[in-house]
Amino acid sequence: MKPVINRLDSRADGFAGKLRQLLAFEAGEDAHIEQAVAGILQDVRQRGDAAVLQYTAKFDRLPVSAMADLEISQAECQAALDALAPARRQALEQAAHRVRIYHDRQKTESWQYQEADGTVLGQKITPMDRVGLYVPGGKAAYPSSVLMNAIPAKVAGVGEVIMVTPTPDGVRNPLVLAAAAVAGVDRVVAIGGAQAVGALAYGTDSIAAVDKIVGPGNAYVAAAKRRVFGTVGIDMVAGPSEILIICDGTTPADWIAMDLFSQAEHDELAQAILLCPDADFLEKVQEAIVRLLPTMPRAQILAKSLSDRGALILVQNLDEAVSIANEIAPEHLEISTANAPALAEKIRHAGAIFLGRFSSEALGDYCAGPNHVLPTARTARFSSPLGVYDFQKRSSIIQVSEAGAITLGAIAAELADGEGLAAHAQSARYRLNTTT
Amino acid sequence: MKPVINRLDSRADGFAGKLRQLLAFEAGEDAHIEQAVAGILQDVRQRGDAAVLQYTAKFDRLPVSAMADLEISQAECQAALDALAPARRQALEQAAHRVRIYHDRQKTESWQYQEADGTVLGQKITPMDRVGLYVPGGKAAYPSSVLMNAIPAKVAGVGEVIMVTPTPDGVRNPLVLAAAAVAGVDRVVAIGGAQAVGALAYGTDSIAAVDKIVGPGNAYVAAAKRRVFGTVGIDMVAGPSEILIICDGTTPADWIAMDLFSQAEHDELAQAILLCPDADFLEKVQEAIVRLLPTMPRAQILAKSLSDRGALILVQNLDEAVSIANEIAPEHLEISTANAPALAEKIRHAGAIFLGRFSSEALGDYCAGPNHVLPTARTARFSSPLGVYDFQKRSSIIQVSEAGAITLGAIAAELADGEGLAAHAQSARYRLNTTT
Repeated sequence: MKPVINRLDSRADGFAGKLRQLLAFEAGEDAHIEQAVAGILQDVRQRGDAAVLQYTAKFDRLPVSAMADLEISQAECQAALDALAPARRQALEQAAHRVRIYHDRQKTESWQYQEADGTVLGQKITPMDRVGLYVPGGKAAYPSSVLMNAIPAKVAGVGEVIMVTPTPDGVRNPLVLAAAAVAGVDRVVAIGGAQAVGALAYGTDSIAAVDKIVGPGNAYVAAAKRRVFGTVGIDMVAGPSEILIICDGTTPADWIAMDLFSQAEHDELAQAILLCPDADFLEKVQEAIVRLLPTMPRAQILAKSLSDRGALILVQNLDEAVSIANEIAPEHLEISTANAPALAEKIRHAGAIFLGRFSSEALGDYCAGPNHVLPTARTARFSSPLGVYDFQKRSSIIQVSEAGAITLGAIAAELADGEGLAAHAQSARYRLNTTT
Repeated sequence: MKPVINRLDSRADGFAGKLRQLLAFEAGEDAHIEQAVAGILQDVRQRGDAAVLQYTAKFDRLPVSAMADLEISQAECQAALDALAPARRQALEQAAHRVRIYHDRQKTESWQYQEADGTVLGQKITPMDRVGLYVPGGKAAYPSSVLMNAIPAKVAGVGEVIMVTPTPDGVRNPLVLAAAAVAGVDRVVAIGGAQAVGALAYGTDSIAAVDKIVGPGNAYVAAAKRRVFGTVGIDMVAGPSEILIICDGTTPADWIAMDLFSQAEHDELAQAILLCPDADFLEKVQEAIVRLLPTMPRAQILAKSLSDRGALILVQNLDEAVSIANEIAPEHLEISTANAPALAEKIRHAGAIFLGRFSSEALGDYCAGPNHVLPTARTARFSSPLGVYDFQKRSSIIQVSEAGAITLGAIAAELADGEGLAAHAQSARYRLNTTT
């Protein structure tokens, strides 16, 4: 029988190999999905709204005659917000407020500097014109995800955020619409799948082409996003969610067990790992897992995720835990120890770092302020949480003075000669001797 | 007969369609290349150095028995630098110095703030551990490209920059090696093609896996980079280079012609376009093109690039030119007019903006300071010049106080309930009532 959760010991023979095996995850490419998506995208590119309507009728069982019928008005979103129970509305608005405050800090300003000869160099920051936000329909329709994707875009100054979300059989999710109202989404269209990605990327008569598409989606949506990348920007194509907890053994075992659950409940491929130097504490956490698991509504998903991909790992000390964490480069890292900031100093790669026993990942998922769209599958080695910077871009500013053109022209011409680019050299040399 | 360069008039019927046609460029996917690259990558992943040696023997006609024979020492790079003619060495060092000064300004600092209840939120900036830099062999081996890719990485604090460059028949390019020495590249290995990309992405016994691969390459290298994306980060896969010039007609026509040439000489697919409201000036530029073209060493490339993809466009006024420029979102934009800064204010999308008649693009390519790796093919709508930010990543910092866990826990639990995520809710609720 499979264990309720894997147990590893960093001192045991073959630990490195076992850890690698536990972490291994390769998103397979499904040839059938790839082919279907390629066809849908091409069709939407060629036939525009007509194709979008056809696929929406087919996949969402929503046969309407015009795109206008798929438009979800601002009034409907606002009505959904107004209809929420007061506690839920307040929670949504407070979360949005906190997310906005945090992301405001990410704004960066254009800058420039002038050199002694009058040459000015700089970097100009501009927001994108128009961004598409994909929100899945059905079970995985998370209002928190609407906030986390739309708010950074609006803070960045994006002119128009267009949200697309499938509404199978015409069923609209009021909490998602309420979140759109709170986040300041400019337009909502009830379309989904590869056809929605195609409409956003290429544009149709009813939907103007966007500059970037963000937001989670199923395998079809992910494949479509990968395919339109280059025509538009995309955010990361996320892998299964992960949490890594470093604990010194002084946090209540039930808390740690529940923190592992809060990741594992996402789906069966989610990964929850605990590193701890205290063998007794690991026993207590295992006991808590066994005791609490049957009480959870998603017990089946939890059980599979924990036994397939979860682990309690005995480490020699907290320094070794930090070094393993840097190797894993986790999406979420909880440092549930005394003096967590000192350990966090040594962390080089992680999407989000939760410090101290009170910083459960769930707080970050909803309302602490930082984004919950984070790099998975070791990509924290080279990528970052979704942020305001993902909705802005930079332009270099180069304003060379007449004197500067002489200094710089000599350097450029010399190097262009070295590279055999005669027009580059001549273009620089023309500006060397002028009498303007 | 084809015109020496296309002529368009923004007032003419069908202008928008003609412009769209001129700009259209779709990088085709070559099934043969894709298949070859997939095979090489898999082989390198499985057999490591042995596979790299085999492909190097085959493609670069360089049959060596060990990876050590492909190592290019720091001493060899330094010797290449020492052997340069003084003027060229000085130009290279001055260019590197200016690039370093500009990129130093792009460094951003970690930040955090504390809320009234003691909760601390922040954003931690860390450099990548290890980065691979691809430098093509043969004709397209540009030392300036070594500077532009390696310097931002070193300024960002990347621990190790590994440069790979193929040396067909064992021929090493001294100017490229000298540039590596100037830029502070940590290690140089004489390998190229998909096998080099695979070695960097997956790691071999002799080459540690990197976190990101940057730098230009041929179709095989580009395909390999696309395929390893996710395992490592990559920079953009660049399309043909482009320049768009807005001129008011007061810059010498020869200068403008040569600036168009300096883009068009890169390759036959490069695109050089001039927007000007002065019909007489357009005639003068065309006359200059016809007169200067035969004098250029790359006349054949120039002629094809200009007649296939180049254009002189008569616009109604400079405001219309700005609006067309924003539609094109060019890689390089020269604003060769009086009061260029006022026009630049209205530019929303461009990789680099060159202001005034003395700011020829060639100066930016080599030594002004800003990066010459820029977004092509309208991607300036959503992406930026290569910069220090491409070699750093952010981690969110979330340190919730005991009091903060009560406020935030209530919000998180309410929203988690709304999303049906019971473990998230419980994980937050555990921290609501504590007596620590």
